[in-house]
Amino acid sequence: MNAEIVAVGTELLLGQITNTNGAYLAAKLAEIGINVYYQTVVGDNPQRLEQVLTIAEQRSDMVMTIGGLGPTEDDLTKQIVAKHLHERLVVDQAAQAKIDHQAQLTGRMQSANNQKQALKIEHAISLANHNGYAVGDLYLNDHGASYVLLPGPPAECLKMIESELMPALKQHRAEKQVYVSRVMRFVGIGESQLVTDLADLISTQSNPTIAPYAKAAEVTLRITASAVDDISANQLIDEIEDKILSIDGQYFYGHGDDFSLEAAVVAQLIKHHLTITAAESLTAGEFQSTIGRVPGVSAVFPGGFVTYANEAKQQLLAIPSEVIATHGVVSEQTAIWMAKQAKQQLNTDIAVSFTGVAGPDELEHQPAGTVWIGIAFKNQAPQAYLYHFNNGRQQIRARSVMSGLDLVRQRLNEK
Amino acid sequence: MNAEIVAVGTELLLGQITNTNGAYLAAKLAEIGINVYYQTVVGDNPQRLEQVLTIAEQRSDMVMTIGGLGPTEDDLTKQIVAKHLHERLVVDQAAQAKIDHQAQLTGRMQSANNQKQALKIEHAISLANHNGYAVGDLYLNDHGASYVLLPGPPAECLKMIESELMPALKQHRAEKQVYVSRVMRFVGIGESQLVTDLADLISTQSNPTIAPYAKAAEVTLRITASAVDDISANQLIDEIEDKILSIDGQYFYGHGDDFSLEAAVVAQLIKHHLTITAAESLTAGEFQSTIGRVPGVSAVFPGGFVTYANEAKQQLLAIPSEVIATHGVVSEQTAIWMAKQAKQQLNTDIAVSFTGVAGPDELEHQPAGTVWIGIAFKNQAPQAYLYHFNNGRQQIRARSVMSGLDLVRQRLNEK
Repeated sequence: MNAEIVAVGTELLLGQITNTNGAYLAAKLAEIGINVYYQTVVGDNPQRLEQVLTIAEQRSDMVMTIGGLGPTEDDLTKQIVAKHLHERLVVDQAAQAKIDHQAQLTGRMQSANNQKQALKIEHAISLANHNGYAVGDLYLNDHGASYVLLPGPPAECLKMIESELMPALKQHRAEKQVYVSRVMRFVGIGESQLVTDLADLISTQSNPTIAPYAKAAEVTLRITASAVDDISANQLIDEIEDKILSIDGQYFYGHGDDFSLEAAVVAQLIKHHLTITAAESLTAGEFQSTIGRVPGVSAVFPGGFVTYANEAKQQLLAIPSEVIATHGVVSEQTAIWMAKQAKQQLNTDIAVSFTGVAGPDELEHQPAGTVWIGIAFKNQAPQAYLYHFNNGRQQIRARSVMSGLDLVRQRLNEK
Repeated sequence: MNAEIVAVGTELLLGQITNTNGAYLAAKLAEIGINVYYQTVVGDNPQRLEQVLTIAEQRSDMVMTIGGLGPTEDDLTKQIVAKHLHERLVVDQAAQAKIDHQAQLTGRMQSANNQKQALKIEHAISLANHNGYAVGDLYLNDHGASYVLLPGPPAECLKMIESELMPALKQHRAEKQVYVSRVMRFVGIGESQLVTDLADLISTQSNPTIAPYAKAAEVTLRITASAVDDISANQLIDEIEDKILSIDGQYFYGHGDDFSLEAAVVAQLIKHHLTITAAESLTAGEFQSTIGRVPGVSAVFPGGFVTYANEAKQQLLAIPSEVIATHGVVSEQTAIWMAKQAKQQLNTDIAVSFTGVAGPDELEHQPAGTVWIGIAFKNQAPQAYLYHFNNGRQQIRARSVMSGLDLVRQRLNEK
């Protein structure tokens, strides 16, 4: 079964708000194996909306509208869909009671506009609105496309999808097949490289499917399997995951849409009771700020140093001036000294250092994107690694931070 | 003239990412009087994409695709649009040179996948990609719909719209009416307050129009005027801007979509030859990392301190242990000491300090969002201010940073 999402609202077309509801709904539908092949955004315009509905029901089994259920003049979705389906609008008693109750509380007379929100399509199942007044509709149609009508305000829409639409759909879905999807996260390898490595796997797979996606400084693979139950679907995913790990396992760092490299590294540090600090030049605190995003990091992170100017490197980290004078500030030696000294100053198990050229201008005749990242790890001799990043100052700094986190991750894995 | 935006990418349909590019593009097009009546999202599927294009060009003068220009197998937009237009794909030399250059730097062999990104539609105008490799296209068509092809990654897409597409469109637009728009940025005031203050202005204005947007921790007003030429349009905008400044001038800090509070503050510091440092606890380096975003900041920012643990506050900032013991770490006194000591250690003109509860857990019986921000400004006695933020750890940290920047901005204005 496939569905099409139609978001209604001129403010969406003008870019005054973003269609976050559509993304959320699509993700929820994917979980139960309803494919969304199209999403459309159309303004509060009766003719254009009806044209969009006509196109949608020709190519989709289910048309889901978001928005236009509110009290104002230009909220017309329910009226237009009803007309389109040759259905009447009737009052949903529960929704009306809720509006009456609120009117009583505020002592305000309720406007006809407000009552409009209690209307439902006569032969549709009502979807209660727990965060508002506009009632939603689930209109199941055996002959043509089925329809779902959802409110536009995210708080109302997301709640209605979660607690009303999804249970109703699961109940009414014809297919008994379950769909399970799992996200694998990779760092230190580009999307094109990963896809090349896994080309055979990706092209030969139909169930599970493997979908690569490039994030800021990492790549994810979404593996989606369908089977008769979760256990067998997960077995299919496990098998393909093993094959993937046997090829590019060294770049894999964790699962899940909401997981992050900093969360993975901090979790490892806490698990192994290892403390960390940093000395940052071009990243100016972004590495520390990034691990600072992870709740509970205070257990392993006492603080650290932002040493932007050479004087600060000498004063805060007690780096001999000859080091910078001899080797330059963007050098292996300076990176090693920064890490070594930061580790010693705060007496941590690990220290990471960043020195390089954030740009736009070059430094010491080295182009923007030239970055040395140093790591002092427990009793090992401190080392530094050279990177070449590009695409501007912010990308260079962000990739430096991700690469620093990845260095720590690799050392932790070696333990 | 009207345009239709077609976002291409299965990850959009699956809701793995949100179509923020579409919203941004729609807003920019509205500024120059191009109406977007429809937005469509379709997956990486050749047949369905071509169907969508066929529908789009029947109802829109200009079809703008976003996404599918990347290196992987399922990036097919350029190939499909070219086929649809009976056009050939040829190599864009500038884009190819950029890919070759990077391959040289990294010493990695470039895959055929990567070279794919340098292809352009033969008779289209190339849109350079300043934040990536995939080149964009502007294909002007006098007989049918014109086409625009943009890359999917927001950093690449937004930059290409801003610095390549918009100038090209303004040049090629049929209409002679010019549209000029100017963004005013405000900090320290909420959207609803600003809109209330300016209610009369906003409601009575039709040309220029005034559109408020709430950003992370600031508010912007977009003033858009249409006239026969830029000069008269700017005159209209100047008049309305004066009225706005006479009402809420103290919250205004600068102009422009790309401008930022950190850029405003750093520019002021450079202008007045004032140096700055920071001591950060809950923000863990985010304040320093934020000013570090601004090119040229090294002239006024030597570095600073991330003092997450109390021991680090004592060791790196030499704060007497009694201070924290007596007043607590989340206190006016600790914030004042952090700022005072940071300023002294690095001998700067200004120091800002952050201590508070990022959450999720409370600290010293104070709820998440309780934040003290200290400022030591030149010869003035250091002071600290209490804030109460909410909406989770990252928002609390981000708002702390913005408030710290705003404190510095206010002191600089008092000079």
